[in-house]
Parts: sequence; structure tokens; C-alpha cells
Amino acid sequence: MGTTLETSLSKVKRGPNRASYDKQHALDIIDGALMCHLGQTKDGQVFVTPTCHWRDGDYLYWHGHSKARNVKGPVDDMEKVCINISLLDGLVMARSAFHHSVNYRSVTLFGVPERIDDAQEKQRQFEIFLEKVSPGRWSQLRPITDTEIKATGLVRIKIEEASVKLRDAPPIDDPEDHDWSVWAGVIPLERQWGEGQTDPIQQIEYPPATTPKAF
Amino acid sequence: MGTTLETSLSKVKRGPNRASYDKQHALDIIDGALMCHLGQTKDGQVFVTPTCHWRDGDYLYWHGHSKARNVKGPVDDMEKVCINISLLDGLVMARSAFHHSVNYRSVTLFGVPERIDDAQEKQRQFEIFLEKVSPGRWSQLRPITDTEIKATGLVRIKIEEASVKLRDAPPIDDPEDHDWSVWAGVIPLERQWGEGQTDPIQQIEYPPATTPKAF
Repeated sequence: MGTTLETSLSKVKRGPNRASYDKQHALDIIDGALMCHLGQTKDGQVFVTPTCHWRDGDYLYWHGHSKARNVKGPVDDMEKVCINISLLDGLVMARSAFHHSVNYRSVTLFGVPERIDDAQEKQRQFEIFLEKVSPGRWSQLRPITDTEIKATGLVRIKIEEASVKLRDAPPIDDPEDHDWSVWAGVIPLERQWGEGQTDPIQQIEYPPATTPKAF
Repeated sequence: MGTTLETSLSKVKRGPNRASYDKQHALDIIDGALMCHLGQTKDGQVFVTPTCHWRDGDYLYWHGHSKARNVKGPVDDMEKVCINISLLDGLVMARSAFHHSVNYRSVTLFGVPERIDDAQEKQRQFEIFLEKVSPGRWSQLRPITDTEIKATGLVRIKIEEASVKLRDAPPIDDPEDHDWSVWAGVIPLERQWGEGQTDPIQQIEYPPATTPKAF
């Protein structure tokens, strides 16, 4: 029937809510998502930036223009950033408005980003990223150039300070509401990769690219 | 063929990237998503929290346990929070790794949250939220109680400082790569609400709940 994790851990302070720490859960959520939300500050103001991420071992990586805020800022400032990765899985429809909820998987990471400057390592990481997005595609592409590697900033944080929250369960109603005459249950959110839309300037149609397991 | 908005505005500082401001775009993105990412600070540390949101006119609302960080914190501290709402729409597969991208819609909002304490207004907002999640459902539910209203914190920010970014276009490759023999195009991410999974403790099956237009 699914689970609602309510145990907790992590070195992270949390609200009065479902929370749990389990490294494999964290890694699965990281690998199951293409996009994270990076929180950082500049001159005291919080910024949240959506960013594509990938993982290599115990490190979470992201890239961007070498001058972009989400790449340059936190490294220069030695700031401990916060990254949240969330996947909405379903709507939990209860008998009362109060007990409505969502099924979801979420991991929150904290760490001081480290910039990677070595060109060879950068290229290796970009290949790992592309392997996540489209397995086997890297070797089919026009090879990456030194200029492109230089123009792209690469940063990472170690995955060690993390908090997992997830809900995967039917509604939990007050017992006295169980017979209330309204439908109750979960409506799942389904995601899939659709049919590839070939670039209109492409003359010959090749097999479309492979799709990721992440969303 | 779709568009890549590259014009800009907003009172918000941005990276060297696609950016635009158009209020209707911002409202459409807000209404098209169920979940936002709220950035706030506590004792100098950034936190990013995924939160369901809804809109009433020019205000963005969210709720939570009245003692939860994302409800209590920013109001008490008079902090200007940052909220990002993003929808991933597709993978942009180019002929070079460098020109790979994603199609997406994203709005970033800034504001000092304001708490709503009036019980009648809180109830009205929770009804607007439920109308977004499942049109017509509110009147079918076991009515909300005063205790439930009290236990639920409600906050809002005015939608006035906003930055929209979106990409909706085929790959943009270097002209000399156009004949490179690899498939190039866009792979769309498709989302839909699946078949309702009736609560196993429910004895009678009613018609499942209506689904939202947002994801």
C-alpha cells in the first residue's frame, strides 16, 4: 500500500513533518530527476535557480555559463548552498480538505560548492551528464572543443548533508470521516518522454535520441 | 516553431541568460504548476522548500503547519523570500554537447510574505486552492473545522517583482554543424493525471475526483 516515511535523521533542521534519511533514497531521487533548485544568497538576498544536475559517485554536479550566478557565486563566496530536488508523484484526495496532500519524493542537500577547472575532468563530467540525458549519444556528437569546455563552468557539492522527505500512501483521514460519501484515493502523476520532434532544418531523419530514465 | 524569449525586464538581477518579463506569462506559469520552491534564510543559512501554491488575483499563496519554517519563518523575520516555479517541457538535442538544452517555463518571484490570520479569509483561500487541485470538490468534502483552520498557517506574497524565463524552440546549433549525422530535435516531456487509485479502505467506489489543469 506504499509508505509514508516519518522517521528522521540528517544534520539538517526540519519542520514538524515527514522526514527521513536514507542514502539510497537520496541517490535514487537525485538520479530520478533532471532538474534541481539551487538556493544561494547574494548581498543578503535569497535566490532560487532551477538547474539541471547529475551525479558521479557521492558528488552532485551542475554546470552553466562560467560567469552565471549559480556557477560563479557560491564558489567565490564559499557559501553553503541548499539544493532541493523534488518529484511530484500524485494527488492525495481525502474526505476533508485538511487531509489532502501530495505523494512526492524530495531530497534537500547542503554543501559548499567546489569549482572544477581541470579541462579533462570537465569533459569527463559533461559526458556523464549527457549519458544521463541520452545514453550512448556523446560519441555521436560533433566533438566538444576546448573553447566550449572553457566557457562552461562546472561545480559540485559532496552528497553528505542530506534530508529525504517522501510520501507514498493513500489518504489518512480521521476515522470518523471514513464513510463520508466522497471518492478518496490517489491520482498519480504520469510522466513520459513523447515522440521526438525532429529539428525542422534537418534534412535526413535519423533514429531519435535515446531518452533518460529521469524526469 | 516556438520561441526563445531573450528579451528581459524585471527589477531582478539575472545571469547572462534567456530572460523576459511578461505578466501573463508569469501568471500562466504560476497557474500551470502545483509546486513551487521557496527560498529563505535562517541564521544565515539558505533553505529551499518545495511547497504547493495557488493564486488569487495578484497574490501567490501557500500554506503549511502554522509552526512550519516555510510559513512562520519569513513572516516573523520580514524577510524577502525568493520563489521559483519551473516546468520542464522537453529535452533539446543538438549536434554538439554544448548546444544541448532544455525547453522549460520558469518564473521567479520576490516578496516579503504576509500572514493571513482572518479565519473566514483563510477558509476562502483554502477553497480556492482546492478548486485548483480538484474543481468542484470542496462542497463534497466533510466541512472544514475551526481547529483545522487555526492549525493551518496561510501566507502570501504580492506578484509584482518577477522574472520569467522560458525556452520553447528547436536546437540552435552552430551553422557548420547542421549536416552532422546525428538526430537533432526536441523530445517533449508529457504529463498526465493517471487513473485514480481508490483508497483501499473505501467500500463504495464513487466517481474519482476531478483533476487539475496544473502539474
